[in-house]
Amino acid sequence: MAATNGMLDPDDTVMLLIDHQSGLFNTVRDLPVPDLRNYVIALAKTATLLDIPVITTASVPDGPNGPLIPEVHEHAPHAQYVPRTGQINAWDNPPFVEAIEKTGRKTLVIAGTLTSVCMAFPAVSAVQAGYKAYCVVDASGNWSKMATDTTIARVAQAGAIPTDTFAMVAELMRSWNRPEGSRFAEIIAEHICPEYKCLIESFGKAQAVVKDGPETKMDKFQ
Amino acid sequence: MAATNGMLDPDDTVMLLIDHQSGLFNTVRDLPVPDLRNYVIALAKTATLLDIPVITTASVPDGPNGPLIPEVHEHAPHAQYVPRTGQINAWDNPPFVEAIEKTGRKTLVIAGTLTSVCMAFPAVSAVQAGYKAYCVVDASGNWSKMATDTTIARVAQAGAIPTDTFAMVAELMRSWNRPEGSRFAEIIAEHICPEYKCLIESFGKAQAVVKDGPETKMDKFQ
Amino acid sequence: MAATNGMLDPDDTVMLLIDHQSGLFNTVRDLPVPDLRNYVIALAKTATLLDIPVITTASVPDGPNGPLIPEVHEHAPHAQYVPRTGQINAWDNPPFVEAIEKTGRKTLVIAGTLTSVCMAFPAVSAVQAGYKAYCVVDASGNWSKMATDTTIARVAQAGAIPTDTFAMVAELMRSWNRPEGSRFAEIIAEHICPEYKCLIESFGKAQAVVKDGPETKMDKFQ
Amino acid sequence: MAATNGMLDPDDTVMLLIDHQSGLFNTVRDLPVPDLRNYVIALAKTATLLDIPVITTASVPDGPNGPLIPEVHEHAPHAQYVPRTGQINAWDNPPFVEAIEKTGRKTLVIAGTLTSVCMAFPAVSAVQAGYKAYCVVDASGNWSKMATDTTIARVAQAGAIPTDTFAMVAELMRSWNRPEGSRFAEIIAEHICPEYKCLIESFGKAQAVVKDGPETKMDKFQ
Amino acid sequence: MAATNGMLDPDDTVMLLIDHQSGLFNTVRDLPVPDLRNYVIALAKTATLLDIPVITTASVPDGPNGPLIPEVHEHAPHAQYVPRTGQINAWDNPPFVEAIEKTGRKTLVIAGTLTSVCMAFPAVSAVQAGYKAYCVVDASGNWSKMATDTTIARVAQAGAIPTDTFAMVAELMRSWNRPEGSRFAEIIAEHICPEYKCLIESFGKAQAVVKDGPETKMDKFQ
Amino acid sequence: MAATNGMLDPDDTVMLLIDHQSGLFNTVRDLPVPDLRNYVIALAKTATLLDIPVITTASVPDGPNGPLIPEVHEHAPHAQYVPRTGQINAWDNPPFVEAIEKTGRKTLVIAGTLTSVCMAFPAVSAVQAGYKAYCVVDASGNWSKMATDTTIARVAQAGAIPTDTFAMVAELMRSWNRPEGSRFAEIIAEHICPEYKCLIESFGKAQAVVKDGPETKMDKFQ
Amino acid sequence: MAATNGMLDPDDTVMLLIDHQSGLFNTVRDLPVPDLRNYVIALAKTATLLDIPVITTASVPDGPNGPLIPEVHEHAPHAQYVPRTGQINAWDNPPFVEAIEKTGRKTLVIAGTLTSVCMAFPAVSAVQAGYKAYCVVDASGNWSKMATDTTIARVAQAGAIPTDTFAMVAELMRSWNRPEGSRFAEIIAEHICPEYKCLIESFGKAQAVVKDGPETKMDKFQ
Amino acid sequence: MAATNGMLDPDDTVMLLIDHQSGLFNTVRDLPVPDLRNYVIALAKTATLLDIPVITTASVPDGPNGPLIPEVHEHAPHAQYVPRTGQINAWDNPPFVEAIEKTGRKTLVIAGTLTSVCMAFPAVSAVQAGYKAYCVVDASGNWSKMATDTTIARVAQAGAIPTDTFAMVAELMRSWNRPEGSRFAEIIAEHICPEYKCLIESFGKAQAVVKDGPETKMDKFQ
Repeated sequence: MAATNGMLDPDDTVMLLIDHQSGLFNTVRDLPVPDLRNYVIALAKTATLLDIPVITTASVPDGPNGPLIPEVHEHAPHAQYVPRTGQINAWDNPPFVEAIEKTGRKTLVIAGTLTSVCMAFPAVSAVQAGYKAYCVVDASGNWSKMATDTTIARVAQAGAIPTDTFAMVAELMRSWNRPEGSRFAEIIAEHICPEYKCLIESFGKAQAVVKDGPETKMDKFQ
Repeated sequence: MAATNGMLDPDDTVMLLIDHQSGLFNTVRDLPVPDLRNYVIALAKTATLLDIPVITTASVPDGPNGPLIPEVHEHAPHAQYVPRTGQINAWDNPPFVEAIEKTGRKTLVIAGTLTSVCMAFPAVSAVQAGYKAYCVVDASGNWSKMATDTTIARVAQAGAIPTDTFAMVAELMRSWNRPEGSRFAEIIAEHICPEYKCLIESFGKAQAVVKDGPETKMDKFQ
Repeated sequence: MAATNGMLDPDDTVMLLIDHQSGLFNTVRDLPVPDLRNYVIALAKTATLLDIPVITTASVPDGPNGPLIPEVHEHAPHAQYVPRTGQINAWDNPPFVEAIEKTGRKTLVIAGTLTSVCMAFPAVSAVQAGYKAYCVVDASGNWSKMATDTTIARVAQAGAIPTDTFAMVAELMRSWNRPEGSRFAEIIAEHICPEYKCLIESFGKAQAVVKDGPETKMDKFQ
Repeated sequence: MAATNGMLDPDDTVMLLIDHQSGLFNTVRDLPVPDLRNYVIALAKTATLLDIPVITTASVPDGPNGPLIPEVHEHAPHAQYVPRTGQINAWDNPPFVEAIEKTGRKTLVIAGTLTSVCMAFPAVSAVQAGYKAYCVVDASGNWSKMATDTTIARVAQAGAIPTDTFAMVAELMRSWNRPEGSRFAEIIAEHICPEYKCLIESFGKAQAVVKDGPETKMDKFQ
Repeated sequence: MAATNGMLDPDDTVMLLIDHQSGLFNTVRDLPVPDLRNYVIALAKTATLLDIPVITTASVPDGPNGPLIPEVHEHAPHAQYVPRTGQINAWDNPPFVEAIEKTGRKTLVIAGTLTSVCMAFPAVSAVQAGYKAYCVVDASGNWSKMATDTTIARVAQAGAIPTDTFAMVAELMRSWNRPEGSRFAEIIAEHICPEYKCLIESFGKAQAVVKDGPETKMDKFQ
Repeated sequence: MAATNGMLDPDDTVMLLIDHQSGLFNTVRDLPVPDLRNYVIALAKTATLLDIPVITTASVPDGPNGPLIPEVHEHAPHAQYVPRTGQINAWDNPPFVEAIEKTGRKTLVIAGTLTSVCMAFPAVSAVQAGYKAYCVVDASGNWSKMATDTTIARVAQAGAIPTDTFAMVAELMRSWNRPEGSRFAEIIAEHICPEYKCLIESFGKAQAVVKDGPETKMDKFQ
Repeated sequence: MAATNGMLDPDDTVMLLIDHQSGLFNTVRDLPVPDLRNYVIALAKTATLLDIPVITTASVPDGPNGPLIPEVHEHAPHAQYVPRTGQINAWDNPPFVEAIEKTGRKTLVIAGTLTSVCMAFPAVSAVQAGYKAYCVVDASGNWSKMATDTTIARVAQAGAIPTDTFAMVAELMRSWNRPEGSRFAEIIAEHICPEYKCLIESFGKAQAVVKDGPETKMDKFQ
Repeated sequence: MAATNGMLDPDDTVMLLIDHQSGLFNTVRDLPVPDLRNYVIALAKTATLLDIPVITTASVPDGPNGPLIPEVHEHAPHAQYVPRTGQINAWDNPPFVEAIEKTGRKTLVIAGTLTSVCMAFPAVSAVQAGYKAYCVVDASGNWSKMATDTTIARVAQAGAIPTDTFAMVAELMRSWNRPEGSRFAEIIAEHICPEYKCLIESFGKAQAVVKDGPETKMDKFQ
C-alpha cells in the first residue's frame, strides 16, 4: 500500500496478545512489571479505538503461569480468546492461526510473555507463513535482558520488525489530526510515557495562570 | 512509647507532603516518575486510612515548577494546604510550622520533591526543633542519584530516619490483623509493589482451579 | 520440514557443549557463573529427555582452563566426549566434525565458553558447512559484555541464529502436552528461571489452603 | 567477651529467619532470587553446623505472601517455628520474643524478607531491647535497591550491624582449623560464592595432572 | 560517487531536524537532556558551516509537546521550518517531502525526538522512496533505552544507516585540513565531546609552560 | 543562629573551590565532565550573586594536572587565588588557611577535584579546626564511583556535611522571594538541572498560546 | 580458503592500528582506558608473533589528540607508520591505502580510536574496495556506549565483521598446539583477560603443593 | 599529632596487606581484578617508598584460595609475612598482632581480600584494641557490591575510616614537593589512575611540539 510510506496499514492489521499472565509476569526481569502491564493496556486500548481485531491466548493458565491479566480483555472487549492445549508456540495451535486467517488481514502486531518464546516463536512462524510481523518487544516481558538482546537479533534476522509500544501506537494512529486524537494522548500519558502526564498537568496550569492570575505572593522576585 | 519497640507511634504522627509538583517531577532522575507518583499516592491513602493529619505545600506552583499533582489531595481529602511565599525550606514558612504545631504531634513523616532540598531541609530543621523525623526517600524524587546518596548520609547524620515507602506504610499499619487489612493490601499492590498484584491474581486463580476445575485440556502431561 | 513453522526440528538436532570448564568459568563476566552453570545443566537435561545426541569437548583441560564441569556428563550421560589436541575452533578438529556427521543430523545447538570464541567459531564454520546453527548465548559465558554484543551481531551476520537457554529448551520441547511435561517444568524452575520455582511453591500453598483451611489466625482482617 | 576482638560470640547467638516466603521472594528486586535462596540456606546450614538456635516465622503464609521456602527448615531441622497472627514486626508478637528470651542469648543474627520491613523492624526493636543485632542484608531481599540503601543507613543509625552472608558465616565459623572446616567450604562453594566452586574443581584437576599426567596431546606447545 | 569510499557526499546531503521540542525533551530517558541538546546544536552548526540545507518541523508545538528548542534555528539560521497539521510521520506531510525534493539531494541526515517515532518513521519512508538515510540516534532522544535498542535494529533492517553525532559530523567534515578546521574542533569540544575541551585547555597550558616558565614553586620535587 | 533552623548562614560562609583543573577533569569517572564543569560554574555564580568570599587554589597547574578551568574565576571574579607549593591537602598550605581566617567566617562550602582527596582532606582538617564544613560531592569529581562512596562515609563520619550542588545553591539562596530570584532560576536551568530549562521553555510557550492563539491547524482533533 | 572453515587466514591478513593516541584515549567512555591500552598491545604483540604486517597512522598527533601511545610501535617494531595530512578517514589518505595494497593481502583487522569514526570509516571503505574487514570493537575505544551500539550495527550492515580482542587473537593463533603457544597464553593473561593470570598462578601453586607439600599447619580441619 | 590536621601520620603507620591471593581474586565481583591488583601494587610501592612497615598474611594459601599474588612482596621487599593456621580474622592470630605491636605504631592501613571479611574483621578488632584504622576498600576486593556497601557502613560504624587507594596514597605522601615526587606520580599513573598516564604522554608531546615543531602537514587549517 503505497500511501503508507513503508509504514503499517491499520486496516490490514491484527493484534496478537499472547500469554500476558500474572505468574509469567513475576518472572519478567528485562523491564519493570507495572510498565509491562501498562504497555499491554496501551496496545489493547489502541486496538479498541481503531477497531483492530485482537486475538488472545494463554499458556496453561490454570497452573503456576497464572491467569491472563484481566486488563487485556477489559480494555479490548472485542478480543477473541483462543485456548491452547499446551502448545508453546501459539502458531502450533490450529484454532489460533485460523482465527488470524478469518480476519483476512496480513499484518500482525505481536506481543507475548516471555519475549524470547511467546513473542518470538509466533513471529518467526508468521513471517514464514507470509505475514508482515511487528514484534512489540517492551510489551512482551522477558526472563533476562540478555535474552531480549538475542531475541531482537533473532526476529530481525527472521524478517520480523522489532519495535516498541510507543512507536507501535504512533504507527497505528498515524496522525493527531483525527477525532480520537485526545484519546491517544490519554493512552500515551496514562500507560506509556508518564513524563507526558506531568507535561499535560504543567501545560494546563501555565495557561490557567495567564487566565486566572498567579497564586504565589512574592514581592521581591524579579 | 514503650509499646512501640522503637517503632513510630501512628497517633503521634503528622505527614508532610511537600512540593510534589508536575514540573519538578519532570526533573526527577533517581527513580521512575510513575513509581514516585504511586508512592506519594500510597502515603496519602495510608494517612487517610489511619486519620493521620497531612499538611501539603507547594513551591511557586504558578511557575515552571507546575501545580501539585492532583492525586495528593484527591487521596488525602483531609489534607491542609499551606501556601508559601517563596521560601525553599518549608520550615522557614511560619504558617507551615504552626500547622504542624497545632496537631500537637511530635513525629513527622516527610516526603518532598526534590529529595535533597524539599525533603532534607525541613527534616534537618524538624530534628533541630525537637521532632522525630522520618524521611521517605523514594516518595520524594531527586535530580540525580548521587544527590540522593549524599542526602541519605546527610539526614541520617542530622538524626532523621531514612526510610522507604513500603517500610513507612508497614510501620504505620503495624498489623494485618485489623479491619482495614485488605485496604492496606490494596495500597501495596496498586501503588508500591506491583509484583504483589500479580501474586494476588495468581493466588485467586490457583484457588479457583481447585474449586472449579482446570481449563487447559492436556491429555499427555504428567 | 513444513510442520515446524520455522522452528527447529528436535529429531534433526545435535547439541554441542564446548569447553564448559571450571577455569574458563572464572573468566566469565557477562553473566553470573551459577546462572551459566545452571543453563548448561538445563541444556544437558533437555537433550537427555529428548534423546538428542550431545557432543562435548574441552580445550586443554589439564592446564589453567580447568576440567569440564562435571554436571555436563552427569546430566547427559549419553554425551560423547571428543578430546582435542589444541585447536581453538572445535570445528578444526576432524574427529569432532566426524562425530557430528555420524548422527546424520543437520541442525546444531551450540553453546561454548567463551562465547565469542568457543561458541562463535564453530557456529560460523557450521553455517559455512551447510548446517543450521543455533547459538545459545547465555549458556556460553564470555569474558566481557561488549564481546557478547559483538558476537551476537557476528553470528547473526554469518547466518547462525542467536537465542537463549529458555527459548532453546522451549523450542525443543514444543508443547507442555506431552508425558515429559512436568520434567520440563522442573528443568525450567530449577535451572533457568528461579522465579518460576517460587510460583510453583505459592501455587501449591494457595491450593492447599482451599483444601486444608488457613493457618494464620486473624480475627480483625477484612 | 574480650577474646572475640569485637567479633560476635557464636555461643551467645540466636538466628532469626523471618518471612522467607515464596510469594514475597517474587517481589524481591535488589538481588537475584536464587542468590537469596542460597544465602538463606547458607545461614540455615551454618546454624545447624554450630548448634545455634534458629527461630523462624512467617507473615500470613496462607495468603499471597506464600509459604516459607521449604529449605529453611530442611537445612535447620532444629529451628523453632513461631506463627504470627498478623503482626508485621515479628517483635510485636510476644511468643516470638519469648522464644528468643528462652535461649538466654543476647546476640541476634537477623535476616528477613523484605529487608526494609521484616529484617529492619525487629532489628530496631532488638537493639532497643538491649540485644546486639546483626542484619544480614543480602539474605533478606528487598522490593527495591533504593529501599535497601535507606535500610542500611537506618539500621546502622539505630545501632544494629549491617553485614552480608559471607561475612556472617565467616564470623560464626571463625577458623578453618576446626573439624567442620570442609563443611564450611562446601557451604560457601555451593551457596554463597559459586566462583569458589570453580576454584575447587580447578584445584583438584591441577593436582590430578601432577599425579596422573596430562590428557591433552600437544606436540608443538612450548 | 566513487571518491567518497562508501562515505556520504556532503554536497548531496539534506539535514532533517524533526520535533526537537522542549516538552518531548522532558520525556527522553535514553541519554541526558543536555547532551541531546548539544548534539542537536552540533548538527545545526555543522550544517551551517557546510551550507547543507536544513529542514525542521514540529509536532503540535502549541500543546504539551512544547516549542522547538530555540537553538535549532539559532544555529542554523538558513533552516526552513515546515509546519505540520498533526501527522506523526513527517513524511506523511506533503510540504515536508516537497521541501526535500526541491533541494535535489538524495542523502538524508535524520534526527528526531522521539527516536523510535520521529526519527525512525521518516527514515523508513525515505529509504522506501529511494533516499540514502543516515539516522543520528543520539541526536534524537527516546522514551526508553529498550526502545532505542529496537529502533537501531529496525532502521538497520530497513536499510537506513544508524550512526552517532560525532561520526556524523566527522563524516561531513571529512578532513581537518580545511579552512573551517578549527571551527569543527570548536563544535566537537563545546557540544559533543567535553573531554576534548579539557584536552585543548591542557594542551595550551603545557605549551605556555615551555614558553613562560612554570608557576609552582617546588624545591624538592624530582 | 536560631533563624537558620539548622540550615547554613550565608553571611558566615566562605566557598573553597579547589583544584578544578582540566587535566584532573580528564580523570573523573563518577560523573560526566560537562556536568561537573557546570556544577562548579553554578557554585561560582551563586557565590558572586550573594557576595560570598571564594578562595581558589590549584595543584601543580603547570604539570599534567593542567590549569584551573577558566570558568571558575570568570564567574567568580572576586575570588582569591592562593598558589600552593605542592601540598596535596590545601589545608597544609598556611596562606590558604590564613585567607579563610581573614574572612572571619566559620562555615565552609568545599568542592575539589578529586573528591576523595582535594575535597575530603581539607574538609576533615576544617572540622578538626572547628569549622562547619559542607562537602559538595558532585561539584568535585572523583576517579571512581567506589571512591566517592567511601568518601561520603568518611566525611560524614568526620562531622562534615555531604551535600550536592542543587541543595547547596538552594540552601544559600533560601527563598525565591528576593530580587535575585530569577538569576537563581537561570543558574539552576543553565548549569544544574537542564530538564528545568525545558520546563521554562514549555511554560513560556503554553502561556503564549493563550495570548497569541495556537499555531497547528488541526480540523479533526478533539 | 576452504581450510579456514569460515575463519580468517592469517597469511592473508594486514593489521591496521589507527589513531590510538593519548588525547583521544582521554575521551573514551565505552570501556576503561587501561583495558583499551592492553587490548591494543595484545593486537600488536600478536601481529609481531605471527609476522602479520601492521600499518599505523595518527590524526593530527601534534594537537590535542596527542601522540600515538608508545606501546603500539614498541610491541610491533615492524609496523609501518603512515602520516596523514588531516584526513579523518584513513582510507582517504592515498599512502595509507597504498601501504595496504603493497602487502597483497585482502583481509584487514582494523582497530581505531574513536570506534565510530576511526575504526568504522576505513572499515566501510575497505569493504567497498573489496576487502574482508574485521572490526575489533573493544580495541578501538569510543566516546559513548550508544555510539558503539550504533557502530556495531553500522559496520555489520556494511558487511564488515564485528569482533573483540580475545576472539581476534584466538582466530589468528588458531591452535594452542604450536611453538608459540605459551607466548599466546602470556598475551591473553597479561593484556586481555586478567582473571586468566590468577588461574595460572593458582594452577602453579596447586601443583607445587602436590610436589612440595602444604604450607598451612592445621590440626583440626577435615 | 596536631600538625597532621586530622590526617594520618605516616611515621605512626603500619600497612596490613591481608589475603591478596589469586584464588580469592577470582571471586571478586565489586571491581575489576586488574584494577584490584594494581591498587595493591600501589600500596606496596608507596609503603616501600616511605619506609612504612608492611605485614602480610595469607589464608590457607595451599588450598583453592591460591598463593599470595607475587607482586605484594615483589614491590614491598621489606614486608614481613606472618603465616596463619586457619584463623579467618587475622587479628585472631597472635603472631600477627605481635608483629604489629613490635612496630610501636598505632595507625593501621588495612586492605584485604575479601573486603567484608579479611579487611573488615581486623579493622573492627584493631579499633577495639585502640588503633586508628584506615580501610582501603578498593584495594581489598569483595564477592558482591552489596557486601561492599554493607561493609562501608559497618566499618564506619565501628570507628574505622573507609577510604580508597588514591586517597590513601595521597594522604601518605602529603606533598608533591619532596624528592620522591615523581615516583609518586609514576605510582598513580601506572597503578591507580590510567587516565593520568595519558595526560603525562599528551603533556610531553604538547611541549615537544613547541620545541621541535609540528609533524602534521596541513595547508588549509585555520
